[in-house]
Amino acid sequence: MPRPRVSVFIAVSLDGFIARTDGGIEWLAMVEDEHGEDYGYGEFFADCDVVVMGRNTFDMVAGFDPWPYAGKRVIVLSRRDADLPEGAEIRQGPVAELLLALAEDGAKRIYIDGGDTIRQALAEDLVDDMTLSHIPVMLGRGLPLFGPEVPHGRWQLLGARHFPTGLVQATYRRLE
Amino acid sequence: MPRPRVSVFIAVSLDGFIARTDGGIEWLAMVEDEHGEDYGYGEFFADCDVVVMGRNTFDMVAGFDPWPYAGKRVIVLSRRDADLPEGAEIRQGPVAELLLALAEDGAKRIYIDGGDTIRQALAEDLVDDMTLSHIPVMLGRGLPLFGPEVPHGRWQLLGARHFPTGLVQATYRRLE
Repeated sequence: MPRPRVSVFIAVSLDGFIARTDGGIEWLAMVEDEHGEDYGYGEFFADCDVVVMGRNTFDMVAGFDPWPYAGKRVIVLSRRDADLPEGAEIRQGPVAELLLALAEDGAKRIYIDGGDTIRQALAEDLVDDMTLSHIPVMLGRGLPLFGPEVPHGRWQLLGARHFPTGLVQATYRRLE
Repeated sequence: MPRPRVSVFIAVSLDGFIARTDGGIEWLAMVEDEHGEDYGYGEFFADCDVVVMGRNTFDMVAGFDPWPYAGKRVIVLSRRDADLPEGAEIRQGPVAELLLALAEDGAKRIYIDGGDTIRQALAEDLVDDMTLSHIPVMLGRGLPLFGPEVPHGRWQLLGARHFPTGLVQATYRRLE
């Protein structure tokens, strides 16, 4: 059974944070585009069968109205129960076992979201591709995307582009 | 007296490190280009009057043969003496006072190098522009480029480009 492709698509400050220390992401608004530019997110999202996120990320997006993952299978990695929107379920890790189960369900591409879950997937060498969108801001402190559990390794640049808002986006593929 | 322009031009891993924990930068070799592509460094270097670096950076480059800054005024920020190549001098910080002195000497553009010195200059809001070259590698651990002393602030993207070696380079200007 082929393992599903595992993808990251995330915005990060120039100094490597995905949120303020309190989880705040209001600074992302600076790249909101009046012409509706979504930086490829819609196409990426449509190509993924399942979203896997950690509990912290879920608790942050759970309050979003409308639920941003409507119609998509969402798996929240957590040991605690939660009020779940339709289509969402709770599982315990580790990520590697979850991916095996998702492969059995026929999943082709998994969207991994949230710092903890991304780092865990990187640590287990499970991430196949990664699209990083650098936002032209420094936060100084915050929740980091990467960390010491991320293994040393080379990546192949698949493409890069930049936008009038100052966002610089690069997509990488893990090299064996 | 106009303050000289202060510029950063530095390579960084995808996870934000400028060197391994032991100072190692052998991973930069992965973007060495057989056609002699220098990613704009030569042009940048030629445009700077003075190089300012911290003691750790100096101790690392001091052993390079030939001395990479021949013909350029180099200032090493340190409280300790050192064997200095021709054209190099030792000063004590802080960076802001040094820039005032350099302005009096007629310096137009300063190249700030080394993590400690760059962070100090950022903390004092002295950096005017910054060219970051992201190398397609994760190190996991190392000497970080940024840190908590870097103040929150927006930057303006001046331009970005990428190269067949996988290097993604973006230049930013500090917004007031």
